Amino acid sequence: MLENCIRNVRTTRPLVHNITNYVTVNDVANILLACGASPIMSDEPEEVEEITSICGGLNINIGTLNKRTIESMFRAGRKAKELGHALLLDPVGAGASTLRTDTAVRLMDELSFQVIRGNISEIKTLALGSGTTKGVDADVADAVTEENLEEGAAFAKEFARKAGCIAAITGAIDLVSDGKLCYVIRNGRSEMGRITGTGCQLSGMMTAFLAASPDCQCEAAAAAVCAMGLAGEIAWERMQAGDGNATYRSRIIDAIYHMDEETLKAGAKYEIR
Amino acid sequence: MLENCIRNVRTTRPLVHNITNYVTVNDVANILLACGASPIMSDEPEEVEEITSICGGLNINIGTLNKRTIESMFRAGRKAKELGHALLLDPVGAGASTLRTDTAVRLMDELSFQVIRGNISEIKTLALGSGTTKGVDADVADAVTEENLEEGAAFAKEFARKAGCIAAITGAIDLVSDGKLCYVIRNGRSEMGRITGTGCQLSGMMTAFLAASPDCQCEAAAAAVCAMGLAGEIAWERMQAGDGNATYRSRIIDAIYHMDEETLKAGAKYEIR
Amino acid sequence: MLENCIRNVRTTRPLVHNITNYVTVNDVANILLACGASPIMSDEPEEVEEITSICGGLNINIGTLNKRTIESMFRAGRKAKELGHALLLDPVGAGASTLRTDTAVRLMDELSFQVIRGNISEIKTLALGSGTTKGVDADVADAVTEENLEEGAAFAKEFARKAGCIAAITGAIDLVSDGKLCYVIRNGRSEMGRITGTGCQLSGMMTAFLAASPDCQCEAAAAAVCAMGLAGEIAWERMQAGDGNATYRSRIIDAIYHMDEETLKAGAKYEIR
Repeated sequence: MLENCIRNVRTTRPLVHNITNYVTVNDVANILLACGASPIMSDEPEEVEEITSICGGLNINIGTLNKRTIESMFRAGRKAKELGHALLLDPVGAGASTLRTDTAVRLMDELSFQVIRGNISEIKTLALGSGTTKGVDADVADAVTEENLEEGAAFAKEFARKAGCIAAITGAIDLVSDGKLCYVIRNGRSEMGRITGTGCQLSGMMTAFLAASPDCQCEAAAAAVCAMGLAGEIAWERMQAGDGNATYRSRIIDAIYHMDEETLKAGAKYEIR
Repeated sequence: MLENCIRNVRTTRPLVHNITNYVTVNDVANILLACGASPIMSDEPEEVEEITSICGGLNINIGTLNKRTIESMFRAGRKAKELGHALLLDPVGAGASTLRTDTAVRLMDELSFQVIRGNISEIKTLALGSGTTKGVDADVADAVTEENLEEGAAFAKEFARKAGCIAAITGAIDLVSDGKLCYVIRNGRSEMGRITGTGCQLSGMMTAFLAASPDCQCEAAAAAVCAMGLAGEIAWERMQAGDGNATYRSRIIDAIYHMDEETLKAGAKYEIR
Repeated sequence: MLENCIRNVRTTRPLVHNITNYVTVNDVANILLACGASPIMSDEPEEVEEITSICGGLNINIGTLNKRTIESMFRAGRKAKELGHALLLDPVGAGASTLRTDTAVRLMDELSFQVIRGNISEIKTLALGSGTTKGVDADVADAVTEENLEEGAAFAKEFARKAGCIAAITGAIDLVSDGKLCYVIRNGRSEMGRITGTGCQLSGMMTAFLAASPDCQCEAAAAAVCAMGLAGEIAWERMQAGDGNATYRSRIIDAIYHMDEETLKAGAKYEIR
């Protein structure tokens, strides 16, 4: 019933507050609009509590964090927690610097995220409290594959249990777990990794899915992952000779714009372990 | 004679200083280049006066304001006022936070804007000094429609008179008034609301139109509104199966790139009340 | 053998740290991914040294500098210099404000850039220590043309010698000099100037080329210039009726995505003086 989750976004049109990096922020805004939600961006400490109060969800992405925006993340996060809003953390580059790792860990400790969404290297960093992330991409050595899938799913479940949230670990195979069950998702294409910000876009969209489906958070997170991967597949079908990552980027957002329940139901490729 | 205004931009190529949000800033730069103007972005208090001095217009957009950029808005604004430059305020999200409302009101009080351009909820917030804006989109309840058009035009005129500027209130029907007459503009498509930043882009482009046509400011503002809406119509004609808001975004800027006086003259849909 | 330089990027996949402006940052990230490199953006003083340490190159672009990011430029730059990383300066708008000119000059004095890449007006500003740049575009009066080419090449060589770096001066005709020889490059199209950030994109990509080919830095810089210009030519061939600068922007990045050694070898138009 993942497909209900996209319908819920389109009918409730949640307003999502994003404290996110300036690299991919435009794409985050456009994919939120594409899926039927509405974005607002604000990272000034003085106003973030008020801004988040009028929203249904808060997406915190540390991709280009600085001291001012870190303060905003905590202020907005506490308010969103107090109001019971959908609250998501995207720990971009956790492990690449002490500031990123520490900030992500402190955010986890103080706030109650519904979902933490990152690549496997970032999530491993959070699990260990330190990391070896090489930039903002996952280490190849960490990748979840068909060979180590059982181990990966067990890690996702354990991380979710310990962190008290849903873990959404995205890569060639995506894992979404609430600590009990684990969605194993095989949508998407490797070429999506050649576009900046598909992960950031997914985090923004997932926050809207969480806000629109408060009664089935794990399903909502999995639905967003399926929708993003499926959009990558649909978009790839529309690529023409000479098209590259810039065109692919637009076509993925376009595919979300047109995605309906039937498309998502027919195209979602997942199993539950 | 609205069409003269686009010719003036293409012949004088005004340099426009933008203190604008980081969400849509790339699109603002590209639409300024598309219409024949030249953009520069700068929001460091130490340099904004110098930067604005070499420009012909200043576009202030509070979409992701922070304390540093607010200071820059005032510094640059005072300098632009002193030099008699085209000066535009886009009060993004006024009403959504006290900081936004207060900043917009203080900017209005201290500077002499040629134009304030926003959606109806934002402008109502400025008229009242407080607001109920839901995020960065207009409240449906506030929308200007054929049914309440007389009332809307009267509000636009009154706001313009009291604020001592041109009011450009955009939505399904756009209103541009200098306090005496009111342009009622019916270009554009509702799908433009599914793209982030069409309003920000319009504000940037309008500043170029104002800088290029100092002797007919109200006409210049109306011409920019018609051009943007018409670009939305032309771009929509070029949409193909599967295209969505991301592709639409690019096609609108492309349509501005190709817009000439004849196209604008033939396509502008407006009346004066 | 310029074509080897693009192969080296694709095989070594360098991670490039960018402290760059928020206007064109998304395009810089996407073109780095398109050419086979990997981008990371970070401008918080507390973490930039750590971030740059895990990278192979640092691209410093002063397009929307502020006091916080200026500090980050120096901190990251010193670390990159200490580690012997590829280090590039893009002095966007040098000459347009005292802060930009002074910051660029101080960066030059303190760091050891492999390459300084800018338009002719920006580089002349750095040569003189002051300037008359009109915004972020080159003055027409300064342009390098077939008529003043000898003079231009002599200036590029002299600047490179005095600054102790490679000078990459881009415009209708591009010049890349290490002080001894000067590549004169005739790839590209004038329409590229109607897109925001083609220069910023080139700087990001060039940093990857420098990081991937440490033994032939001047060749690597020239190869990046040829690749960018050639991408502009290939992208233009793919333009359809109604396409404008927004579509052109995507198609250029797409062309980089597909560029291989054969394409670059066949399409590079340069002579060495």
